[in-house]
Amino acid sequence: MPFINSKVNVKLTQEKQDSIKSKLGQAISMVPGKSENWLMLGFEDECKLYFKGDSSTRIAFVEVKIFGSASASAYDKLTEAICNIFNEELEIAKDKIYVKYEEVEHWGWNGANF
Amino acid sequence: MPFINSKVNVKLTQEKQDSIKSKLGQAISMVPGKSENWLMLGFEDECKLYFKGDSSTRIAFVEVKIFGSASASAYDKLTEAICNIFNEELEIAKDKIYVKYEEVEHWGWNGANF
Amino acid sequence: MPFINSKVNVKLTQEKQDSIKSKLGQAISMVPGKSENWLMLGFEDECKLYFKGDSSTRIAFVEVKIFGSASASAYDKLTEAICNIFNEELEIAKDKIYVKYEEVEHWGWNGANF
Repeated sequence: MPFINSKVNVKLTQEKQDSIKSKLGQAISMVPGKSENWLMLGFEDECKLYFKGDSSTRIAFVEVKIFGSASASAYDKLTEAICNIFNEELEIAKDKIYVKYEEVEHWGWNGANF
Repeated sequence: MPFINSKVNVKLTQEKQDSIKSKLGQAISMVPGKSENWLMLGFEDECKLYFKGDSSTRIAFVEVKIFGSASASAYDKLTEAICNIFNEELEIAKDKIYVKYEEVEHWGWNGANF
Repeated sequence: MPFINSKVNVKLTQEKQDSIKSKLGQAISMVPGKSENWLMLGFEDECKLYFKGDSSTRIAFVEVKIFGSASASAYDKLTEAICNIFNEELEIAKDKIYVKYEEVEHWGWNGANF
């Protein structure tokens, strides 16, 4: 039951979006027990983003929401993978990418909570 | 002080949006102490969403942010109600709907925190 | 490593957005250890928002995501400042503004977590 939402201030073509989707689907398995089988993704492109007061560079803000919890080292590996994906696919410098984690206690699907 | 944000990958007509708004306003009272009197809602339609690697089905991601906390059973009832609302109003299959909860400790309104 | 996301149901001109950006960059320093040097901002305008079942007034929902934690009094000062900013810049009544805080334990940047 993970959800990853990506905000970027560049235009996402369908091709790029599908490619990032597939790569995030692989990367999520770095968190034990998680896989693309339960992964939901959201993409927001051409967002109005600023980093350090500046909006002239390429920027990404990625939120990873996970049911339950995982180890710090699992999150660390996922951050590395996510930064690589957005750098490779969209030429966003890694030091312009934030990856923020939220561990969720109550999560519903199909009419009931897990 | 709840906030419910709904992301869907279908088009929301004004009529549907108003109807969902009213139903969410009723459903929130399943959480003790909460009512439409303090409820803020956000709707994002035509979102770019994927579930299990697929974007060809109707999908919803609903986030419920609550000041303080409530019982697991209250959240369970709210999940059931929310899934029913999005299924009835937008024909989104319940197994394509995530409802994610966030319990919030610090919440401001009108210039000060509660 | 703060991130502030602002949803408003009015149109944001570039001028207003830049002005709010600068003011939020100053306000964040009310939280000890935080400054515009690490601040990322997101703006979403013309959002579909309702408060108390009504969408006819000007409304803002501001989320402040902070790595680590801070005192309640720091958050209180920040809420006051944020409500002032949105009231002054966009004529949104302060009692139509929610400011929601999230304290984050796992936060990545530049390929690794802090």
